[in-house]
Amino acid sequence: MSLPTRQPSLPDARPAHPVIEIVSPFVDAGRFPAKATISETIEVLADVFAAGHVVVNAALRWRKAPSPTAPAGDWNEVRMRPIGNDRFSATFTVDALGRWEYGVVGWVDVAEAWRQGIVAKVDAGQNIDLELIAGRRLVASLVERADALQNEGDAARLRELEKILAAGDAAPLDDETWTAVFWRNGARDPQPDTPQAWPIDIDRDRARFSAWYEFFPRSAVAPHRGPQTLRAAVDRLDYIASMGFDVVYLPPIHPIGASKRKGPDNTPVAGPADVGSPWAIGSDEGGHTAVHPELGTVDDVSRLAQACRVRGMELALDIAFQCSPDHPWVTEHPEWFAHRPDGSIQYAENPPKRYEDIYPLDFDTRDWQQLWAALADVFRFWIDRGVTVFRVDNPHTKAFPFWEWALTTLRAEHPETIFLAEAFTRPRAMERLAKLGFNQSYTYFTWRQEAWELREYFTDLATRTVDYFRPNAWPNTPDILTEQLQSGSRSTFATRAILAATLSANWGVYGPAFELLEHRPARPGSEEYLASEKYQLREWSVPDDASLAPLLTQLNIIRRTNPALQHLRTLRFHGTDNESLLCFSKTDPVGDGLPVLVVVNLDPTNRQMGFVDIDLAPLGLPYDAAYDVVDELSGNTYHWYANRNFVDLDPHGRSAHVFVLHPAHAEASR
Amino acid sequence: MSLPTRQPSLPDARPAHPVIEIVSPFVDAGRFPAKATISETIEVLADVFAAGHVVVNAALRWRKAPSPTAPAGDWNEVRMRPIGNDRFSATFTVDALGRWEYGVVGWVDVAEAWRQGIVAKVDAGQNIDLELIAGRRLVASLVERADALQNEGDAARLRELEKILAAGDAAPLDDETWTAVFWRNGARDPQPDTPQAWPIDIDRDRARFSAWYEFFPRSAVAPHRGPQTLRAAVDRLDYIASMGFDVVYLPPIHPIGASKRKGPDNTPVAGPADVGSPWAIGSDEGGHTAVHPELGTVDDVSRLAQACRVRGMELALDIAFQCSPDHPWVTEHPEWFAHRPDGSIQYAENPPKRYEDIYPLDFDTRDWQQLWAALADVFRFWIDRGVTVFRVDNPHTKAFPFWEWALTTLRAEHPETIFLAEAFTRPRAMERLAKLGFNQSYTYFTWRQEAWELREYFTDLATRTVDYFRPNAWPNTPDILTEQLQSGSRSTFATRAILAATLSANWGVYGPAFELLEHRPARPGSEEYLASEKYQLREWSVPDDASLAPLLTQLNIIRRTNPALQHLRTLRFHGTDNESLLCFSKTDPVGDGLPVLVVVNLDPTNRQMGFVDIDLAPLGLPYDAAYDVVDELSGNTYHWYANRNFVDLDPHGRSAHVFVLHPAHAEASR
Repeated sequence: MSLPTRQPSLPDARPAHPVIEIVSPFVDAGRFPAKATISETIEVLADVFAAGHVVVNAALRWRKAPSPTAPAGDWNEVRMRPIGNDRFSATFTVDALGRWEYGVVGWVDVAEAWRQGIVAKVDAGQNIDLELIAGRRLVASLVERADALQNEGDAARLRELEKILAAGDAAPLDDETWTAVFWRNGARDPQPDTPQAWPIDIDRDRARFSAWYEFFPRSAVAPHRGPQTLRAAVDRLDYIASMGFDVVYLPPIHPIGASKRKGPDNTPVAGPADVGSPWAIGSDEGGHTAVHPELGTVDDVSRLAQACRVRGMELALDIAFQCSPDHPWVTEHPEWFAHRPDGSIQYAENPPKRYEDIYPLDFDTRDWQQLWAALADVFRFWIDRGVTVFRVDNPHTKAFPFWEWALTTLRAEHPETIFLAEAFTRPRAMERLAKLGFNQSYTYFTWRQEAWELREYFTDLATRTVDYFRPNAWPNTPDILTEQLQSGSRSTFATRAILAATLSANWGVYGPAFELLEHRPARPGSEEYLASEKYQLREWSVPDDASLAPLLTQLNIIRRTNPALQHLRTLRFHGTDNESLLCFSKTDPVGDGLPVLVVVNLDPTNRQMGFVDIDLAPLGLPYDAAYDVVDELSGNTYHWYANRNFVDLDPHGRSAHVFVLHPAHAEASR
Repeated sequence: MSLPTRQPSLPDARPAHPVIEIVSPFVDAGRFPAKATISETIEVLADVFAAGHVVVNAALRWRKAPSPTAPAGDWNEVRMRPIGNDRFSATFTVDALGRWEYGVVGWVDVAEAWRQGIVAKVDAGQNIDLELIAGRRLVASLVERADALQNEGDAARLRELEKILAAGDAAPLDDETWTAVFWRNGARDPQPDTPQAWPIDIDRDRARFSAWYEFFPRSAVAPHRGPQTLRAAVDRLDYIASMGFDVVYLPPIHPIGASKRKGPDNTPVAGPADVGSPWAIGSDEGGHTAVHPELGTVDDVSRLAQACRVRGMELALDIAFQCSPDHPWVTEHPEWFAHRPDGSIQYAENPPKRYEDIYPLDFDTRDWQQLWAALADVFRFWIDRGVTVFRVDNPHTKAFPFWEWALTTLRAEHPETIFLAEAFTRPRAMERLAKLGFNQSYTYFTWRQEAWELREYFTDLATRTVDYFRPNAWPNTPDILTEQLQSGSRSTFATRAILAATLSANWGVYGPAFELLEHRPARPGSEEYLASEKYQLREWSVPDDASLAPLLTQLNIIRRTNPALQHLRTLRFHGTDNESLLCFSKTDPVGDGLPVLVVVNLDPTNRQMGFVDIDLAPLGLPYDAAYDVVDELSGNTYHWYANRNFVDLDPHGRSAHVFVLHPAHAEASR
């Protein structure tokens, strides 16, 4: 309980190694893993320094972390380069998914300090007799280590140096290639007994870069008017794939409870023909591992997943850990639910609101270990049937320790699995879920609509939380029809799609509602849809001249062809002299993809003009740069010069530019 | 070595308590103590939250930390208040110097959630029969705990509530005073086996708020032309006290080595009359615990310290852990020094520069434990003779672990002692020394001269490092005569004093050089003084019409009478439309001192005018405020309105305003 009194008496062993302070990635001082994906180049920054006028070296080490089934991998090591003011940088890449760990070691490089000293003294014409004596001892020890490390080339070169020093010559030391030789073969300070290593989880690239399309498979899409089943859903995949989406996400597909079933528009009583909410999970036909008989079978899920895969997409299931009163667990495991004083099971409520069709699971039940294991098994059941992506419903209402345990366990077994946290709640809880292991997270994007709000929010996402929180931006969901979209303005829908697809590397829409501009609210002031698919069947006429499908297609193509849009970390906002205009850019942090610059008119009604003021350096452009900006939406090319350039965007025509920047020859374009 | 695999199997005990993330103060995730002073109100911010729709409570706890000589104090506890988005705040004060520790505990408040629920249901006209049953159980348990805790008033009130509930009445629950009753008596979630507590060091207020005056006691100040001794120095104290300084700091007072002694202006050879540098410590007359015979005796130091005390000041000694070749340790403990290959002791060098009059101590010596103990004893020797403040020379060239051990040990014995780190080095090393325990630190202020530099640097000091790094700002030191001051411009000297005294709560000058505008460099491009007191005696004519002493006096009075200037944390910069004008403010974080607003013309030559754009809210002013600003330097009062106000500062007259803000009656001043 009490803090150990620090160093009340002399320490037993003099800690001689340099101070090492990890700068990034570093989540809660290493308490939680950072995140990266398999094709990313991971940069580690650390401050490494010691007292006095010494030369400090640093090395980055990384390895596959030990798991319950496999020992740790061998350490890899690379030299860290000083980048000023004691900060060192190095990068690494990995070759396998799952948990890795990295650390930084530092030591004082006596040999390099000696080399620099002797060179300075020779330059100043000072006597170096004693330095030569010291150097011969030092080089002899380097030869020994080079031999021991089997660095044969270094050993030969160092033996040659020994002879040169013995002859009293120091001139060959004025050669910076020695630095690497000393780095490789120099003695290191004694390292701490437990050098610290920090966890980092490596995901598939799709965890970082994805485009989601959500639809209710039970609703009809003209002209497919037959039974709306999972088998029939296969026929819709080509449409979704043609728009460039790569995650096909279905609301819960399980049997739906009949007790307290809600009617259309969330009315409290359902008629006999009413289909109920897919989130009221479970009936006598089964629970979280069953499929609604009208949708099909468990095997149909496997087939649908496979049909997605052959089209370059993945199937995502919605896992909502809650039960209808008819769920088998209610009778099989009543102890998994909280009970009211009269012995009845406690339904969901947020007084005075009551959700009597939903029984929350009691994560604090005395039988919690059995419950938690059963819930993890739900994921395993679907993973075994080919599901690779899960959208988890309301994870913030379930115990945080459950998620840390479940996600760590499941990802140790299946590191390819991606979990999206559907938590629309307070910032700290959303961030916590990401720290606990969710690979992607829903965001406040939906309600961030003004330029200043978008700048502030996405700057925060791209900096403070970027090591662990991967936003997935949605303009709409079945639960959220924002007031802004209720206008039905085509320009607003388009703008929101452009923002989501370019600000965030992960984005998604709830369709066909989105591309068909569905915008009628259940009632004034509500964000619910009228005639919501959550409570009733709908029929959509997808081939529609007004559909935004062509824009969505274009956006997904632009995202695929421009690596800059596949990352968040390089997002940067630029100035405009018109607050209706939002301007931002991204660059490719890995390869040689061109920078992308986006300018959006956020005013859905009026033409807006103004100057943008581009911060050129992060785009790799000199201050007097001439360059071409090619609008990937319109195909138009503009010749721009330096930082201030004019834009003119009309929501009735085009409300945004998505520019790719091509450096131009200054002479030609001036 | 390998990271424990996190939660591979189900945890043994369900961790039910809320997540607690300390926000501030928090230094390197609790690795190092935060700092505060005895009269400060310490605010602790923490994010405390749990999954689900629950009511979370948080309490701040603090106690005297255990020490080698005393057990820990009893825990104090206070309720933390939610301030939005899961963040909780509470403050505490302490009543003793030394190390304290604080922590945050959190729990889910079932009773309060029940109360809010039942009130909402009553409002909605819903049945509450089951809630009444649950409530009676809950209240019974609260009664039990109230009895156990001897909260008699609460117990009586809860018993009354039991009766009311039994009668089926819930109306009295619609009363928020129950919240505190439940807080005091409600059951808490099981707390972690080792609730975390974080260290905080409590210093005297002078560690936070001080004005230093450095002088060389061996130099003469007219008309005192007798022997310049520590006894004679007593006569100078009234002058220093009259200017309002409260720390009297002397360069090293020890015997000075004769070997390799430097002559005037740092020439390599000293003549027989040359006095040598006070930093070349040690001769056959003694070392770090001796006094130079020409200055006096150890007893004279005690007398000088006492003479300072009776004038409300303190004596600060300079501790420089390095030795002249004549220091007794060189012969008594040659093993405490590094040796060259020829057996000679290694002098200080930074090739090709050589400092042959200085032998650095080898903190890495095999005999390091004896060395470290001896060095700590140097501090103890002077502490025992009444010295309470130490300025430590070049601490960044001594082993960091030494400082952590020495400062922790010495402050456990003498928590009133203040250590100032004289480290002009790279940022991370300076910050590290502060983390290791130095109570104050020299800064880059001396070289931060443009408005943007000052804004950037002091914003960083007042935010990122404010929990542990206390800047002490000096316009000059015996080693640093900046190029800016070499102009000798009275306006520049004045401006630099005003900036140091108002930006930083700790400041100091090296006098009489500063107030007498001494500005001749040793040579062009050098920051050394010509005829530096470091190497020769000087004679100063202190009563001088041109002296800045009246300004220094005025500044120290303004600082004493305005608590806002005694803190750093509330520093805020405000906009100006003229980059030659710097504008900033401070408020009193503890009491009801008035805000101070400073506007400085940084141009030493030209009159500068412009509008300042005051951020009114942090000053407690509404957007349409009318207020009086009283210039404490000139005595002039101006009536200001709202945020934009005009200033006009002429370096040939007054180059700065130091305003105290007096809210005025809006009617009267418009």
